[in-house]
Amino acid sequence: MNVCIIGLGLLGGSTALGMKTAMKDLRIIGVESSRKHAAQALSFGIVNKVLPLEEGIREAHVIVLATPVNVILELLPQVLDQVTHKQTVIDLGSTKEQICQQVASHPNRKRFVAGHPIAGTEHSGPEAAFAALLPGKQMIICNKDASAIDALETTLNIFKTALNMRISYMDATAHDRHIAYVSHLSHITSFALSNTVLEKEKDELSIFQMAGSGFSSTVRLAKSSPDMWAPIFTQNTKNISAALATYIKNLEHFKAILDQQDEAQSHEWMEKANDIRRILLGIGQ
Amino acid sequence: MNVCIIGLGLLGGSTALGMKTAMKDLRIIGVESSRKHAAQALSFGIVNKVLPLEEGIREAHVIVLATPVNVILELLPQVLDQVTHKQTVIDLGSTKEQICQQVASHPNRKRFVAGHPIAGTEHSGPEAAFAALLPGKQMIICNKDASAIDALETTLNIFKTALNMRISYMDATAHDRHIAYVSHLSHITSFALSNTVLEKEKDELSIFQMAGSGFSSTVRLAKSSPDMWAPIFTQNTKNISAALATYIKNLEHFKAILDQQDEAQSHEWMEKANDIRRILLGIGQ
Repeated sequence: MNVCIIGLGLLGGSTALGMKTAMKDLRIIGVESSRKHAAQALSFGIVNKVLPLEEGIREAHVIVLATPVNVILELLPQVLDQVTHKQTVIDLGSTKEQICQQVASHPNRKRFVAGHPIAGTEHSGPEAAFAALLPGKQMIICNKDASAIDALETTLNIFKTALNMRISYMDATAHDRHIAYVSHLSHITSFALSNTVLEKEKDELSIFQMAGSGFSSTVRLAKSSPDMWAPIFTQNTKNISAALATYIKNLEHFKAILDQQDEAQSHEWMEKANDIRRILLGIGQ
Repeated sequence: MNVCIIGLGLLGGSTALGMKTAMKDLRIIGVESSRKHAAQALSFGIVNKVLPLEEGIREAHVIVLATPVNVILELLPQVLDQVTHKQTVIDLGSTKEQICQQVASHPNRKRFVAGHPIAGTEHSGPEAAFAALLPGKQMIICNKDASAIDALETTLNIFKTALNMRISYMDATAHDRHIAYVSHLSHITSFALSNTVLEKEKDELSIFQMAGSGFSSTVRLAKSSPDMWAPIFTQNTKNISAALATYIKNLEHFKAILDQQDEAQSHEWMEKANDIRRILLGIGQ
């Protein structure tokens, strides 16, 4: 099978490496706008060759879009314009509503499967890619009734059977509303923590020597790629803004408790938050 | 050497286990108000015996206070009342200013060394204790000129030589101002993230199935013990309140950028935050 992966960063590269590990008779064609990333992907053995977009699509049975979500929005209609009823197009973007809307009335809509693998690290580029990123993780497929049955089957053969991912199905609008809370918001809280402490550091040079593993863990996502995240925030603004407003309200509530030195209420607020133990155990984290 | 550890939770227990691994001819006496924790500490081999406070102090060359900081504030003057000029008292609390003030004019002040090991996990109790928690980490000693030279030497023999910790010295007031940013604040951002998402979950049952490793990492500290943290927040209110106000301002700044869909500014804000990479590399995280 020929698979064309558009975008050879952390996610596209890891998808390629994971498939190569698990599948036989596979040829991976890369499409990549950065010459540096294209060269790295070739030298790391992530792809068999790199082609321009149209040629890559033409040679592939399956086309995987693994670029930032603004580029998916731009490329997906062009890719669908070109595919036949034998090809399958899968996107891996972290937002799903606008992407699904963009091609809702496209004549080749049925060839498209809207996916979101819940997997990533704070690193980016082909050099961050590794075969074990996707196996065992969750893959959300949105608006599956809009996809052809054989396109879904092809997607499951790759992500469920070969990559051993847990598949769940969801409406694209619900996906974006939920993911704002459990993924997009936690990136913003980390970026903001980083900026707050970095600004403070200007006057107080020694503070980072005092940072431990707790700080590192909480601020880890602040290393994430702005090229990837800025378009996600733009596409999911409404939901993220609501989540962020609730988060700020929570902090202001605690700040009032703190300023009153109401230790009983402070204790209660943290006890409530401790319930996250139960939840994280439930999802195996 | 006889060491009396008051408070046999994560930190007290790990100090005992670390010392047992690295030091010879050591007898660890535990003082613990929870009968359950006392029994666990005995059965896990954390302590050789458990005694009431006064007897524990009497039998020890070194007394280590590893309780929540409100209990340190209460017990430290009593402990100093009882010690001779041959005994050393060390506290391991996450706040230092009030604790140092509390005993500033105590006749036995010189027997006391104010310490803060930058080490911990989100777990608590003797069952969370492990010998490797402290080795390799940083230990901040505050207001060292107020301690006797031999008391400092005893402290360094344990924490620097035996436990292999990096020692740094700091003024207690500066310590509390700095640590508000790189430790206390990140706990609050995690507790608030947990509460925000848990509140949302009431209406949206499926959201946690969508959580990945990024969310887990950011929310990890929300599992921390309210018994430990509520008194820290009370003792360091002024500094934490200032840090939290700056953090909320940062979030509001980003929310304005988000609501205007100003992707260029959003990108720039995240790029600034990415600088945390350099810092975390510098501290080996």
